Amino acid sequence: MALGEFDLIARYFQRPAAGKHAAVVLGIGDDCALLTPRSGMQLAVSCDMMVQGRHFFADTDPERLGHKALAVNLSDLAACGARPLACTLALALPEANEEWLSAFAGGLLQLADAHGCTLMGGDTTAGPLNICITVFGEVPVNTALLRSGACVGDDVWVSGTLGDAHLALRALQGHKMLPGKALALARQRLEAPTPRLALGQSLRGIASSAIDVSDGLLADLGHILAASAVGAEVRADRVAALLAVHALPANERPVLTTAEMRQCTLAGGDDYELVFTAAPAQCHAVAQAAAAAAICVTRIGHITATPGIRLVDAQGVTVEQAYAGFEHFSVNKP
Amino acid sequence: MALGEFDLIARYFQRPAAGKHAAVVLGIGDDCALLTPRSGMQLAVSCDMMVQGRHFFADTDPERLGHKALAVNLSDLAACGARPLACTLALALPEANEEWLSAFAGGLLQLADAHGCTLMGGDTTAGPLNICITVFGEVPVNTALLRSGACVGDDVWVSGTLGDAHLALRALQGHKMLPGKALALARQRLEAPTPRLALGQSLRGIASSAIDVSDGLLADLGHILAASAVGAEVRADRVAALLAVHALPANERPVLTTAEMRQCTLAGGDDYELVFTAAPAQCHAVAQAAAAAAICVTRIGHITATPGIRLVDAQGVTVEQAYAGFEHFSVNKP
Repeated sequence: MALGEFDLIARYFQRPAAGKHAAVVLGIGDDCALLTPRSGMQLAVSCDMMVQGRHFFADTDPERLGHKALAVNLSDLAACGARPLACTLALALPEANEEWLSAFAGGLLQLADAHGCTLMGGDTTAGPLNICITVFGEVPVNTALLRSGACVGDDVWVSGTLGDAHLALRALQGHKMLPGKALALARQRLEAPTPRLALGQSLRGIASSAIDVSDGLLADLGHILAASAVGAEVRADRVAALLAVHALPANERPVLTTAEMRQCTLAGGDDYELVFTAAPAQCHAVAQAAAAAAICVTRIGHITATPGIRLVDAQGVTVEQAYAGFEHFSVNKP
Repeated sequence: MALGEFDLIARYFQRPAAGKHAAVVLGIGDDCALLTPRSGMQLAVSCDMMVQGRHFFADTDPERLGHKALAVNLSDLAACGARPLACTLALALPEANEEWLSAFAGGLLQLADAHGCTLMGGDTTAGPLNICITVFGEVPVNTALLRSGACVGDDVWVSGTLGDAHLALRALQGHKMLPGKALALARQRLEAPTPRLALGQSLRGIASSAIDVSDGLLADLGHILAASAVGAEVRADRVAALLAVHALPANERPVLTTAEMRQCTLAGGDDYELVFTAAPAQCHAVAQAAAAAAICVTRIGHITATPGIRLVDAQGVTVEQAYAGFEHFSVNKP
């Protein structure tokens, strides 16, 4: 008996109607899913594609992979201040491995359920492993956090911890040895990131701009600066202190050079924290929003009129070092 | 100089704001796109993934591929009676080949523009060629055409011509020789299908159920029957007559056996016509809707209470032949 496309969807991804978000009128099983957005709301839509060997290793735990595939999309909703409603999943698979599929669906649906995000449709096909998720969230009209709102004088903030995902990547690639607990902690950050949805929604009306850290702090902050036509001064020492592994007991803490700490935290990527800007007068409101979302936030710099990012140390002296963000293509043009 | 992800999006896919649909508030260039659906409308969402070697040949003309990638998605909106609003595009590419990208984007955006469908976001990455599009359409609340509405006694209709796409596939795979004009016509049907959007919208309130023919007439009609808990009697001779190549002059017409004609039209797939049901009393309304959409429709059978599809000839005698639909996985289960 063959496990066809339709069996596969029904077996692993179709849920009882009771699990559906109220906005999802019709889910998996027709040509289209139907969604009824609430009055006064805009729909925020984002789409990410993950490819084996590029975004994850072939041996990544499928449950974590299911989690991460949705998490990186929900993180885009978080960066806009949107509340998740639903998602679609397109999946190319080399083979219909039932054990893998069950674990992948489990990881994805557990995170979806935790955020009220209904899997309402999708597509499956044979092919090199590729996961493409589109998420839909709602945000009250004209309240979405954009990249383009940063103003000169605004503080630059980042949520949570930074750089551990890249540290795990370095370790898994064999470039760095880590103590067991440090590896487990860093790997958790790489493979099972937490989208900052509560924080994003709390920051509506407070933050002047926001983005999630997927390609690296400097690269992603760079997108805010470009969209807002401003620059920034960033305290490299404060950013380097944001590694979660720093908080481990001394005997479990990895030994990292300043260059390594900076590389991980400034250019690492895959952290899925929020970097955002807010007027200095909003400082207290930012702290309250963070407390409400149960996440710490750190002020790492401020917006300037001079284009680009100036990295400085605790004494305000410029740190001369270039950190590239994650780019998917590097092709020489004529 | 490297052609990075962001350059690539900007160069080939980002459009002037003037080209945007009114519902698209914010397009490419932020974490999320923002969409404001109109009051009284539901959002119809569909998602298809196309993989090289599975859904298209490596040497497929990239302009036609861009057209088809969007067309198969728009066809799902057509089957629901929805009007296109916007789409997202996720693209995995082995290399950033500018000539290929320019042609692909051209084909996709030309079809998008023809139907007022704004490309509002997406993702690009390196990886084995994979195209994943999610489309968004609007349909007045409670008017979407579903698979589940077919009733015993309803007529079964199909739009346009059927089977030529599969005939082209057989020719391109070397299984069938076709005269030049027949090959060109069939290949056009395979590589540049026309989504029946006007017909789908015209059939709201008239058709009792609808689906688009992507996997083959019998397989797709089978989805209507399963969702509606009914069966159907289908005239194999009327369906076999639906090949577009039949209309060519005698010296350009391919010689096809009855078995070949049936295989192509009943099980071929990739036609992206609409198969739909309507009460006999709606016969005139169906003809008017088809005329308004400038497409012919053919009555090929009727809905019965007996589960499954009974194929009959012009004399009402059962045609004993099994035709499988397109399934993406065939894996032996224990």
